[in-house]
Amino acid sequence: MNLKNADILSARQFNRGDIEAILKMAGKMEVFSSKKKWGDLLKGKLMASLFYEPSTRTRLSFETAMQRLGGNVISVVGAQFSSLSKGETLYDTGKTIENFADVMVIRHPKDGAAEELAAGANVPVINAGDGSSEHPTQALLDIYTMQKELGKLDGKTIVMVGDLKYGRTVHSLSCLLSHFDVQMIFVSPSELKMPGNNLRVLKEKNVSYKETTNLAEAMKWADVLYMTRIQQERFTDQKEYEKHKNAYILDRELVEKKCPKAIIMHPLPRIWEIQKDVDDVPGAAYFKQVRNGVTIRMALLAMVLGKNP
Amino acid sequence: MNLKNADILSARQFNRGDIEAILKMAGKMEVFSSKKKWGDLLKGKLMASLFYEPSTRTRLSFETAMQRLGGNVISVVGAQFSSLSKGETLYDTGKTIENFADVMVIRHPKDGAAEELAAGANVPVINAGDGSSEHPTQALLDIYTMQKELGKLDGKTIVMVGDLKYGRTVHSLSCLLSHFDVQMIFVSPSELKMPGNNLRVLKEKNVSYKETTNLAEAMKWADVLYMTRIQQERFTDQKEYEKHKNAYILDRELVEKKCPKAIIMHPLPRIWEIQKDVDDVPGAAYFKQVRNGVTIRMALLAMVLGKNP
Amino acid sequence: MNLKNADILSARQFNRGDIEAILKMAGKMEVFSSKKKWGDLLKGKLMASLFYEPSTRTRLSFETAMQRLGGNVISVVGAQFSSLSKGETLYDTGKTIENFADVMVIRHPKDGAAEELAAGANVPVINAGDGSSEHPTQALLDIYTMQKELGKLDGKTIVMVGDLKYGRTVHSLSCLLSHFDVQMIFVSPSELKMPGNNLRVLKEKNVSYKETTNLAEAMKWADVLYMTRIQQERFTDQKEYEKHKNAYILDRELVEKKCPKAIIMHPLPRIWEIQKDVDDVPGAAYFKQVRNGVTIRMALLAMVLGKNP
Repeated sequence: MNLKNADILSARQFNRGDIEAILKMAGKMEVFSSKKKWGDLLKGKLMASLFYEPSTRTRLSFETAMQRLGGNVISVVGAQFSSLSKGETLYDTGKTIENFADVMVIRHPKDGAAEELAAGANVPVINAGDGSSEHPTQALLDIYTMQKELGKLDGKTIVMVGDLKYGRTVHSLSCLLSHFDVQMIFVSPSELKMPGNNLRVLKEKNVSYKETTNLAEAMKWADVLYMTRIQQERFTDQKEYEKHKNAYILDRELVEKKCPKAIIMHPLPRIWEIQKDVDDVPGAAYFKQVRNGVTIRMALLAMVLGKNP
Repeated sequence: MNLKNADILSARQFNRGDIEAILKMAGKMEVFSSKKKWGDLLKGKLMASLFYEPSTRTRLSFETAMQRLGGNVISVVGAQFSSLSKGETLYDTGKTIENFADVMVIRHPKDGAAEELAAGANVPVINAGDGSSEHPTQALLDIYTMQKELGKLDGKTIVMVGDLKYGRTVHSLSCLLSHFDVQMIFVSPSELKMPGNNLRVLKEKNVSYKETTNLAEAMKWADVLYMTRIQQERFTDQKEYEKHKNAYILDRELVEKKCPKAIIMHPLPRIWEIQKDVDDVPGAAYFKQVRNGVTIRMALLAMVLGKNP
Repeated sequence: MNLKNADILSARQFNRGDIEAILKMAGKMEVFSSKKKWGDLLKGKLMASLFYEPSTRTRLSFETAMQRLGGNVISVVGAQFSSLSKGETLYDTGKTIENFADVMVIRHPKDGAAEELAAGANVPVINAGDGSSEHPTQALLDIYTMQKELGKLDGKTIVMVGDLKYGRTVHSLSCLLSHFDVQMIFVSPSELKMPGNNLRVLKEKNVSYKETTNLAEAMKWADVLYMTRIQQERFTDQKEYEKHKNAYILDRELVEKKCPKAIIMHPLPRIWEIQKDVDDVPGAAYFKQVRNGVTIRMALLAMVLGKNP
């Protein structure tokens, strides 16, 4: 696969070979994301950060990746866009910013925004999250984290927990995982189940999955326990919320009892759904995900800009 | 002309020789704005972006220019100023920021703001738009675009269309054009005509100009068709608005019929006043203006910092 | 003293030897903050600016210091934090951002915020102002300014004027000054006196100090006159305000009459409490403080990152 000049818009655009090529390139970037070395692979390249929503964590991750490889950054955040986009189409924004930058990263509240921008821009566009649709670079860093922590993905069981209905992270992740020989267990309140169209994709590919509301039971099978936040305001039935709010809280005791060897992940920020005493459990990997995010974004930026260390 | 250590505050500060010197320097910058090369002419220089109004397009243009020439940037946008300017005069802001930066770029909603800042600062100040007063770097990039597209300005006819009353762009542009042997045709609703003081300057210099409300008629004479947005809320008489709203919309058919060889320009963002099907007309130059903006700002930054490639 | 990997959280963490070591390092940084040279001491290092409150002056000072020494910057300001900190603890923020940056600078409205961040982060954290608690880098630049302007601090009289109750600047400054053989005179309305716990520290160290409401009288003794803003809204008794509002305004005539040789300082922004005609008095040092702020921050960044020019 050659990603040179390609857009990164959706997890659906990758096959297993693509994913493995990206993970391999990420491996080459480890030395730079570990801070052991400052790179110059992207020297002379300029990245535009276009964050129509703040999403500070993701923006800083991309800006760190770009700079640690020697590249430069221009950046626009939130309300600052008022002037840029005052009635302007994303197509026009693309045709404008391509005169400044060699690559664009966009975060936008609207589904499909990254695609619209890419239609106008003749430089690569990377989707850093559009609406509740896609967040492909998050899914790639999640896969990369699983592979690093477990050695390989095939044969493993991934348990995803929480708000599976609105969480774009788990949508993109289940899509990428469908290319591997894994089992998935989806744990959520019945009001927040994984959407039907995501499940359909798994069925078509004969991926083995189960749905349940019972976290403690599912944990026993977990090689990876992927937690997400569930929010009270998502529930129409507050009894349903009361039933689950404590069932979906992880503490050290529960982890040590049910899945002491599992890798524990979370896209962050975590509130109370992972208690602080879990941080020292050997499998806790949620802050490692942050560093792996820099590594993956280094790999993607290098690849779309046609650079190989 | 030597612009070293000079402020760039107004289109009125330049004579024809000055303008030609800037355009010539811009020519030397083409290689850097085309992304063919990354410069180091401004290495070791720091630019402060002081954008009291967002104006994202202009800010990114300056920051791109500075960085692509090897310089560094510090940046403040909009509401972030609350602390800097809490009752502080722009004079004091100038005396403060000069301790950080080698050059300052300011955008401000108040007429004359750039001049106040420059009074305090002992480093060069560049006006990136103050109130409805001036936007000299936009006018310079417009002139540069015309020269690149037409070869030369003398003998040409420039048709300016839309809101000529409030548009600071067309005010600064007509001022710069008055140094050349051109004809201007001003097309606007009668409520949005070019202000008297701008016309007076043209008369004094014996520049030939006409005023009309009829776009289709004016287009026949155009070597350059410079479109701007007109906004419904500017009109006290809504019948006047209804009369013009469609007359001042450019589509491909109209362009091919009336002025197939004209250069078509717009300061952007465009809304509906230039239909998207015009983008592929050979003379469409509005996105080229964006790139030329980077080139011109590279030239100005280099000149005020006393650097020559 | 070795500050490598240390956090800079409070003025209270330094003894006289520490302060002198920092001032000495600042001396080595003068060439870079004077713009005579661009450094590369911090090349390959990335600083995160985390400004939960705007505080533009301080942020630009740090970002200038970092960049002029060859380092890089990622930056978050004000409302952009909504996403980062949505319910997240500062501890988690620290564990997140340490994956991006080699050093963090934080400004936060809450007392103790820098310490919370430092508890999570395994890279150095510098407090750029937390609540009404501490602003140690401001106090260090103030001391550095006094030493530069007066040659030495021992034997000098420092007069602090204005809102001594709420001003975190004067709290941190009196703490640092207590390590030197100085006299302090505190001039304020009775409603805005230096808090008791600050005075207690001075008593314990046998530092000589006086309190008064009479500026003109105190000025006669001043080697340094340190002005701060007093705000009308701080007063419950408006008669008290009326009494002092004009007494605490400095103009050229007053300075020349009472303390023509004193150094005049202010943390900025100044409003009317120092009239503009004071700017040309030989002792006026408030804009020099801005440059010294860059110098001190260069020194601190280099020291916590373990670099020596």
